[in-house]
Amino acid sequence: MNAPTNFEGMEVGFDVPALPGMDVADIQTPCLILDLDALERNVKKMGDYARDHGMRHRAHGKMHKSVDVLRLQMELGGAVGVCCQKVSEAEVFARAGIKEILVSNQVRDPAKIDRLARLPKLGAEMIVCVDDVDNIADLSAAAQKHGTELGVFVEIDCGAGRCGVTTTEAVVEIAKAADAAPGLTFKGLQAYQGAMQHMDDFDARKAKLDAAIAQVTDAVEALTEIGLKPELVSGGGTGSYYFESNSGVYNELQCGSYAFMDADYGRIHDQDGNRIDQGEWENALFILTSVMSHAKPDKAIVDAGLKAQSVDSGLPFIYGRDDVKYIKCSDEHGVVDDPQGVLAINEKLRLVPGHCDPTCNVHDWYVGIRNGKVETLWPVSARGKGY
Amino acid sequence: MNAPTNFEGMEVGFDVPALPGMDVADIQTPCLILDLDALERNVKKMGDYARDHGMRHRAHGKMHKSVDVLRLQMELGGAVGVCCQKVSEAEVFARAGIKEILVSNQVRDPAKIDRLARLPKLGAEMIVCVDDVDNIADLSAAAQKHGTELGVFVEIDCGAGRCGVTTTEAVVEIAKAADAAPGLTFKGLQAYQGAMQHMDDFDARKAKLDAAIAQVTDAVEALTEIGLKPELVSGGGTGSYYFESNSGVYNELQCGSYAFMDADYGRIHDQDGNRIDQGEWENALFILTSVMSHAKPDKAIVDAGLKAQSVDSGLPFIYGRDDVKYIKCSDEHGVVDDPQGVLAINEKLRLVPGHCDPTCNVHDWYVGIRNGKVETLWPVSARGKGY
Repeated sequence: MNAPTNFEGMEVGFDVPALPGMDVADIQTPCLILDLDALERNVKKMGDYARDHGMRHRAHGKMHKSVDVLRLQMELGGAVGVCCQKVSEAEVFARAGIKEILVSNQVRDPAKIDRLARLPKLGAEMIVCVDDVDNIADLSAAAQKHGTELGVFVEIDCGAGRCGVTTTEAVVEIAKAADAAPGLTFKGLQAYQGAMQHMDDFDARKAKLDAAIAQVTDAVEALTEIGLKPELVSGGGTGSYYFESNSGVYNELQCGSYAFMDADYGRIHDQDGNRIDQGEWENALFILTSVMSHAKPDKAIVDAGLKAQSVDSGLPFIYGRDDVKYIKCSDEHGVVDDPQGVLAINEKLRLVPGHCDPTCNVHDWYVGIRNGKVETLWPVSARGKGY
Repeated sequence: MNAPTNFEGMEVGFDVPALPGMDVADIQTPCLILDLDALERNVKKMGDYARDHGMRHRAHGKMHKSVDVLRLQMELGGAVGVCCQKVSEAEVFARAGIKEILVSNQVRDPAKIDRLARLPKLGAEMIVCVDDVDNIADLSAAAQKHGTELGVFVEIDCGAGRCGVTTTEAVVEIAKAADAAPGLTFKGLQAYQGAMQHMDDFDARKAKLDAAIAQVTDAVEALTEIGLKPELVSGGGTGSYYFESNSGVYNELQCGSYAFMDADYGRIHDQDGNRIDQGEWENALFILTSVMSHAKPDKAIVDAGLKAQSVDSGLPFIYGRDDVKYIKCSDEHGVVDDPQGVLAINEKLRLVPGHCDPTCNVHDWYVGIRNGKVETLWPVSARGKGY
């Protein structure tokens, strides 16, 4: 019997926007689609880059929240494991059998610390970030209680202005405490410069990263002097990985958005002044949307609004179209300027979201497409896992 | 055996942020909490208002996407049923046994029309909005195919500039077509003025609604003349329901946000110039968040960022606190200005989200609290149902 290629015969109500084998035209919108060819090229390219530069790549799973995308990054892109931001995300990846997991964030709540300390029982090597020496005793107690081992990265705030310590003295103090604490192992440094990743100008990004590298180098030297040379120095994103890779001090990358791309990252410039979505990376992630009303001749209403995306970094752009423009959105609707009235009811458009991470977090499924057909559905495995 | 009151003894990884019986202090953050006392007071107040004004209240389920909240609105607030914006939401409510369901939106995709036409088989009286006479034949064919009946509201665009027709002639044309089509019943008018709901000034809102009422009255008169007097004239939101209720032409309200409130609605003014969250409605919905880093003395980092809320209508405010302020957010972090350094690690804060609808849509659970304890967990039943 052939696989079903449309929704005929299904019962009342269903919970997937597509089925494998279906034409793209039959997908129920709005939903996320992945151009699998483009995704695979992005993943392979970053994998080749990291290998050629002697860098480990610990892919950032907070972006896609998907066990399937991570497996592609590991199998095709040589990623060593995953970073995530939340214990609940780490639980999803650990349950899927992922062996190297970094929670690139602070964990302070007693129940969360307890949950974290259980994960090595699933075979995962867990590392967590610390920016307060008071956190060490709690992590150590939980690891001892469960008979497990937790790795510690000291987090340096190298410009993001968020979590992380700002002085080498503070780095050394926490590293020493981690080294001395039963159940904990000092593993290295977390030094992700998040605030500069989206600066358009390449040289402006370089200047910020140069300052971060100087700060990290100072910490590494101080730690080496006291016999605590970091095994891993981790950081780097889609807007900066070439700086960390050539720094001589970082040895692990944490890139995420390169795999999917989004509008906000796409407009930053490479060394030659070109947008990074015009050669360096391909758009692989889209919100597929349909025209659902055209009662006014110059405005088409599409079915993807605020509940199909996050607009924190601006509105999406319509991929491959210069004649129509997404100009406004409300909860369930997008308004598309269509001055020549070229769009037809039920016509499908591909939106490149402003910001991929929080956009992926509102969807349950990635619909993987190739050659105009649905090839696979991947769950957004850690969707909503924030706690 | 007593119910568990914390996470002790649970296995590796779990999928709820709280358990009934737990102290609020033990809830895993970030998550949505509902102050059940405040929610019940809001729901009863709107129910009493609608009853006292002879209005039906068809509560808007697109806001909360919750079967449990809807049941409260029906049982305590006398709501007659639900509106929603998507066929996938309607499927969730129909499967839960809700009998009056309005899809307050256009349905054009062939598969979606087919799905819609099946729902009356579950016992639901379905109504759908139409703003294009070409839609009538498709809806009629699907209803006939499944042997069901679909009600039709003609949607009037009375100022939102989105879906809906703008002339009485167009209203009449679609109503006549619906009346003549097998499997369809012309039920009335959808006339929701969405664009004015969030205007701060009461009189400015009134002026917009006066124009909408004139437009709707004209359509009702023209329809009555040809023997198609609308059974239902439906519209009205939290920022306008008193106008529709006293219009003499509307007979059904569609309010949603009143039940939870949010920061953007909260700042609009009532007739006396007071914020509507200072007397008219209570804040019942909060994002519970915890301080997770305080490495800089004047900035606390909390665990609710872009993935715990939508910031399309601005940042959240911190409920009940004037000494600290949520000033910035990234994917998983919020930056709280804490000039006097009063916040402690793991201290919990209640955030009132900028916009409740898309914020609820990123969470899986409502944690219902009363008297400092978790009373219940309600699933966000139609979360992510956009297609």
